[in-house]
Amino acid sequence: MKIICSKESLMKGMNIVLRAVPSRTTMDILKCVLLQAEDDRLRLTANDTSLGIETNIPAMISEPGSAAIEASLFSSIVRKLPDSDIVLETDENETMKISCDNVRFSIAGRGTDDFVYLPSIDVSSSIMISQYTLREMIGQVIFSISDSELNAAMSGVYMEILGDKMRMTTLDGHRISVRVSPLREEYQPVSAIIPGKAMNDISRIITGNHDDDMKISFSSNHIMFEFDETRVVLRLIDGEYFNVSSMLREENETHFRISNRILLDCLDRSTLLINENDKKPVIMTITDEVMNLKLRSAIGTMDENIPVEKEGKDIKIAFNPKLLMDALRAIDDETIDVYMVKYNYPCTIRNDEGTYSYVVLPVNFTEE
Amino acid sequence: MKIICSKESLMKGMNIVLRAVPSRTTMDILKCVLLQAEDDRLRLTANDTSLGIETNIPAMISEPGSAAIEASLFSSIVRKLPDSDIVLETDENETMKISCDNVRFSIAGRGTDDFVYLPSIDVSSSIMISQYTLREMIGQVIFSISDSELNAAMSGVYMEILGDKMRMTTLDGHRISVRVSPLREEYQPVSAIIPGKAMNDISRIITGNHDDDMKISFSSNHIMFEFDETRVVLRLIDGEYFNVSSMLREENETHFRISNRILLDCLDRSTLLINENDKKPVIMTITDEVMNLKLRSAIGTMDENIPVEKEGKDIKIAFNPKLLMDALRAIDDETIDVYMVKYNYPCTIRNDEGTYSYVVLPVNFTEE
Repeated sequence: MKIICSKESLMKGMNIVLRAVPSRTTMDILKCVLLQAEDDRLRLTANDTSLGIETNIPAMISEPGSAAIEASLFSSIVRKLPDSDIVLETDENETMKISCDNVRFSIAGRGTDDFVYLPSIDVSSSIMISQYTLREMIGQVIFSISDSELNAAMSGVYMEILGDKMRMTTLDGHRISVRVSPLREEYQPVSAIIPGKAMNDISRIITGNHDDDMKISFSSNHIMFEFDETRVVLRLIDGEYFNVSSMLREENETHFRISNRILLDCLDRSTLLINENDKKPVIMTITDEVMNLKLRSAIGTMDENIPVEKEGKDIKIAFNPKLLMDALRAIDDETIDVYMVKYNYPCTIRNDEGTYSYVVLPVNFTEE
Repeated sequence: MKIICSKESLMKGMNIVLRAVPSRTTMDILKCVLLQAEDDRLRLTANDTSLGIETNIPAMISEPGSAAIEASLFSSIVRKLPDSDIVLETDENETMKISCDNVRFSIAGRGTDDFVYLPSIDVSSSIMISQYTLREMIGQVIFSISDSELNAAMSGVYMEILGDKMRMTTLDGHRISVRVSPLREEYQPVSAIIPGKAMNDISRIITGNHDDDMKISFSSNHIMFEFDETRVVLRLIDGEYFNVSSMLREENETHFRISNRILLDCLDRSTLLINENDKKPVIMTITDEVMNLKLRSAIGTMDENIPVEKEGKDIKIAFNPKLLMDALRAIDDETIDVYMVKYNYPCTIRNDEGTYSYVVLPVNFTEE
């Protein structure tokens, strides 16, 4: 193999596929990026067996061929080369020579035989979505996946295509996050549980621009994301997702509107009094025009009043402030609507348009 | 004690004195900031017994008095309060109430009796210097102090007032860094070995502006920095400093000029091939117009040619690239002058104006 490409495109391509290189693994070949040179392009592929990414960059191919090379070392070297054209050349010993201006590196490559190629998947349906929408939605639900290994589905993002809408759901046993976004066309219903970590990786390698579209394709065991010159294939989490709709209750006894920013700042301050060994909740007392928040721990006490517009019954209820904060941060609205039933029932933050619902379980508290 | 001050000034003051709050200590009182309220100002003091800082902020004093409070918790709370006026009030139980708009915190304070006040020092001489110059000089020598505890002087910055010049020197057994800067007046000679960590702290709390002056005062055991509303007192390191001038040799066999940026980039690339267990040096071969740099390790090889303007003998010499890089980064000049004697003699990077000298020891290497 012998090729010439620009440092800029090689770096851009490596930054994409590096997401599929595991930081720790006992299988050396998984630490490698596969380079395949033919037809005026260099294809870069990395695959940690649950997440596989390939991307193409423009290159002048003097000698087609392929090579596998340790991805992290290779990309560190490329990053520190001068901003110029780079020549990559492998010999029969699988040594790779990297030349750029007056700089010459030479590092050991690997055979490509044991490289795990991307699976070919049997696509049953596909949709188109803007990269902006996908990235937004991921960011708005990803925080409430669980890292527990007891229930694999909890570590995933549940993606549903429902006609002309996409819905994403995550839950971790203490809370549920649901986001709905319109699609530009009507599609066949399909759903998938996608590993949360890989969803995070996807949202980091897409541009996130309104005008950049991507294609999402489903098969029984995989999901594929295609955008620009890149293709990402993920193995899905097996099994059924939870029946969340039964947990998204509509009825309520108390409804109030409150400033997102003011409530968030208050909850943020209250966390200063919480330490790991003494997880005291924040106690909210909501009356017609005022929400009072109190937190009392071994470190000290906090007491604050925030204006609200309330309908329905007064209520006293307690929460782990960090769970509420995650939800508030995921909502762009300046004013939010909060619905409660009783001190021991989940509370829901949702909007009338039905584009989001955040459900948070309260915690027990002792009256003082 | 009862006072009112702005969040902004309290935060600014706390950020200064926090530098003297040790992150780990068995003495609880050292984690505290002392607040002293009188005469329209609140004085904040922290003292870890080797570094003491006090600063004054404007405040309305309703009730003079003093209080000690855990510095890190107190400043976290202040940081998260609304941008408004803050009321601080202590009662007979040493509880501190912190109020700001609708927010009320209450945390436990401490008695002030066992607080370690700043030592009063017997000033023998003082100088004036711009905060810019002091910060610049610290940054240009601080990297070559040693964290070894075998020799306390090596962990310090040697500051000398030499008439109308200030000189700072650091060394760690592998290299020496010397910086000289003019003073605006002629002063009595005086010198001091100042703990390196504290010098770093000083450079972070000063503004670093050209137009902001500071006063440095010397006593036999302490040095004091006074600027704006702040006073910093440091205990000096005892003993004599090394006789560095004998190590700054003027004679040389090889002298060359080279681009600082190009050499730095090349050395930076070479470090990619070094791992902790296999510290291979970079080998330089300098001939009339070219410096060749080679590094060969178990990871791979690097080979690069850089243009130089050389006078004197050709030379082959090897270095730990990181030591050279620290020196190059501390030099603003685009082109540097490097002086060498033999492969096993220290190399010196210095300018004709005599404002800097960086001496780096070479390492052994095996010819291939």
